[in-house]
Amino acid sequence: MSAALPGVALKRAVSRRKSIIMVIAKVWQLVRRPEGEPTVEDFLCVEEELPACSEGDVLVEAVALSIDPYMRYKARQIPLNTPMFGSQVAKVVESKNPELPVGTHLVHYEGWRTYTVLTSQHLKDKEHFGVMCLPEMGDLPKSLGIGILGMPGNTAYFGFLDICKPKAGDVVLVNGAAGAVGSAVVQIAKLKGCRVIAFAGSDEKVAWVKELGADHAFNYKTMNIGEALSKVAPKGVNIYFDNVGGKFTAQALPHMADYGVVSLCGAISTYNEEVDIGVPSLRSPFNEGTVIWKQLHIEGFLVFRWKARWMEGLKQLREWIEQGKLKYKETVFQGFEKMPSAFIGLFHGENTGKTVVVP
Amino acid sequence: MSAALPGVALKRAVSRRKSIIMVIAKVWQLVRRPEGEPTVEDFLCVEEELPACSEGDVLVEAVALSIDPYMRYKARQIPLNTPMFGSQVAKVVESKNPELPVGTHLVHYEGWRTYTVLTSQHLKDKEHFGVMCLPEMGDLPKSLGIGILGMPGNTAYFGFLDICKPKAGDVVLVNGAAGAVGSAVVQIAKLKGCRVIAFAGSDEKVAWVKELGADHAFNYKTMNIGEALSKVAPKGVNIYFDNVGGKFTAQALPHMADYGVVSLCGAISTYNEEVDIGVPSLRSPFNEGTVIWKQLHIEGFLVFRWKARWMEGLKQLREWIEQGKLKYKETVFQGFEKMPSAFIGLFHGENTGKTVVVP
Repeated sequence: MSAALPGVALKRAVSRRKSIIMVIAKVWQLVRRPEGEPTVEDFLCVEEELPACSEGDVLVEAVALSIDPYMRYKARQIPLNTPMFGSQVAKVVESKNPELPVGTHLVHYEGWRTYTVLTSQHLKDKEHFGVMCLPEMGDLPKSLGIGILGMPGNTAYFGFLDICKPKAGDVVLVNGAAGAVGSAVVQIAKLKGCRVIAFAGSDEKVAWVKELGADHAFNYKTMNIGEALSKVAPKGVNIYFDNVGGKFTAQALPHMADYGVVSLCGAISTYNEEVDIGVPSLRSPFNEGTVIWKQLHIEGFLVFRWKARWMEGLKQLREWIEQGKLKYKETVFQGFEKMPSAFIGLFHGENTGKTVVVP
Repeated sequence: MSAALPGVALKRAVSRRKSIIMVIAKVWQLVRRPEGEPTVEDFLCVEEELPACSEGDVLVEAVALSIDPYMRYKARQIPLNTPMFGSQVAKVVESKNPELPVGTHLVHYEGWRTYTVLTSQHLKDKEHFGVMCLPEMGDLPKSLGIGILGMPGNTAYFGFLDICKPKAGDVVLVNGAAGAVGSAVVQIAKLKGCRVIAFAGSDEKVAWVKELGADHAFNYKTMNIGEALSKVAPKGVNIYFDNVGGKFTAQALPHMADYGVVSLCGAISTYNEEVDIGVPSLRSPFNEGTVIWKQLHIEGFLVFRWKARWMEGLKQLREWIEQGKLKYKETVFQGFEKMPSAFIGLFHGENTGKTVVVP
C-alpha cells in the first residue's frame, strides 16, 4: 500500500496473465475527522494491492460511486485510515463464483474504492450493508442502482409512504426537494394525490421541482419559509418530509397541522455541527410545546429497516419511471479523484438529483 | 363584580330564598402574563354575581379544583382578566335540568371558580372541554375525578398504552414519576410486564415510586441521569414517557434503544421559558442525528384525542384501584385562596401525586 496524491489519476494496474492477476485498487481513506465542513485534506487516496480471488470470490470494478449526505455521519464513526464508507455500482470482472459471472452488476458498500475483491463472506452478508444484485432495469443507466432505483429511491418510497401514510388531499412539505430523495418524494406525493409544497436552494432547482409537479416551490435562500407556508398552507402542513433539519425545521414546525407527521430522513443543514449522535444537546428545532399541543408524530428512520421489502420499492419505482410518472436527475462527476470534492459539494447544494462519481 | 385580595377567604354568599337565589362566586382571573415562573400577582381573586338558572341550567359548587402543569400554557393563551383555565369536580346545588338533579357530581372546565352556572349550552358542549358526569366510583373520594379517575389517569392510560404500545420486557423510563400522571404510568407499565426506571425529585418521592413497583428509582437532583441509565439500561430504553422535557430529555435521549418510542406528555421543566408554542426555536433536546440513527418515534399528545374512549380508561383504572393494583396520592391544599400558590408549587415539585385544592 502506498500513498498517492489526491486528484492524480492513476492508471489501472490490472494485468491479466494466465496465472497471475495483480490488481491495484485506488482507495480513498478517511485520515482525519472533519471539523465542521469536510475538506479535501480529511481524505487521502492510496493504492492497495488486492489479493487474488479464492474460490467463491469475485473481483469487481466500480462503475458508479455514490455520494450521500449520510457519509458525514460515517466520517465520525469509522476508524481513521480506513476506506471511506460508501456504496457503488460495480461490475464483476473476475469470478470464482458461478452465481456471479463476469459482467454481473452489483451494489456493494465496501467504500470509496475502484476495485474490490468480494469474498464469499461479503456475499453471504445479510446485514444492513451487504451486497445486492442490481434490480432488473432494462436500458436504464446502471448508476440508478445507487440512485432512484437504489437506496435514495427506497428512502423516498418507504420513508414517505410507510412513515407518513399520505392520503389524497394531504398538504405535504418537502425540503431538499431537488435532491436525490426529495425530488422522488415530491413526485410520489403527487402520485398519491397530495398537495405538495417544495423548497430547494436555487431558482434553477425550483424550476425543476415545479416541472416535477410540485404545487408550490420556493427558493429557501430568497423566500422566508414561515411566510411562504402561511400563504400556501394556511390550514397547516399534514406531512413534512425533512431532509434539511435545523433552522429550516424550526421555521416549518409552527406551520404543522394538528396530528401532523414529520418523517425525519436527514438533517443536512446540521451535519457539520459539532453535536454528535448520542451526545446530550439542546439545539434541535422540535419545540416540545409545539409537538405536544399540535400532537405531532416525529419519526427518524434508516432505510434499511425495509430491507425485507427492498425489491418491492424498486419494482414500483421502476414501473413509475417507465410510465413517465417519475423523473430523476444525476449530477455526475468524472474521475475517482473527485470523490472528496463531490462529497463536499453536497453541503453547498452543488448537486441536482443524485450525486454520482464515475471513475 | 368587585376585586378582592387574594388569600382573603370570602364567605359564601349563597342565599336561598323561595324566589331569589343570589350567588356570588369567587373567581381567580389571570390579570398578567407570567414571565418565567408565575407569581401570585399574575392572578386576582374577584367576586362575580351569577345569573339565576334558566330552564336547563344547573348551579354547581366546586368540590375539588384541579391544579395541572398544562395551565402554564393556558396562561399564555387565554385572554387577560378572564377566569384562569382549569377543571374541577363540582356538585349540583340547584337544578333546572331533570337529567342533573341536585347532588349530582360533574367535572367541568369553567376555570378557577367556586360557583358556576352551567347553561344548557355548556352541557351540550361536545368539544374538548365539555362537562362530564363523574364516573361511577363507589366510596372513592370524588376528587379522584380530576385525578386518577379523570384527566391525569387517562393521560397515563392512553398516553402510555396507545402511543407506546408496551410489550412485556420493554425497558420503560418515566420521569416526574411521583406526579399525578407519572405515578400511574409506573404502575401501568409494571402491570404490562415492563421493567421500569423512574426518576423523581426527592428521596421521599423516590421511596414512594419504589413502593409503586419501579425496578429502579432515582432522585434526578442527586443522581446523574446519563450515568444512572448507563448502569440500569445498558441495552437502552425502549419506551420513554416524558413529563419533564428539556435537560432531562437531552440526557436521556442518547440512552434510547433503536426504534425507541418517546411519548411526549409534558415538558414541565421548560414551561417557564420564554419560547412559546408555534414560535421557531432551536432549544429542544431531540437531537436530529440521534432521532434518525436510533430511528426514534416521538409523539406529542393531548389526552382529549381519546375522548370517545374516555370511560374505557376510567373503568380500567377504577378496576385496578379496587384490585389494589393501582395506588395514588393527592396533595391537597385547603382553601380557594391557595389556587395560585398551589399552581406555583408545581414548578418546585411541591406535590406528590395529584394537586387538588379544596375550597
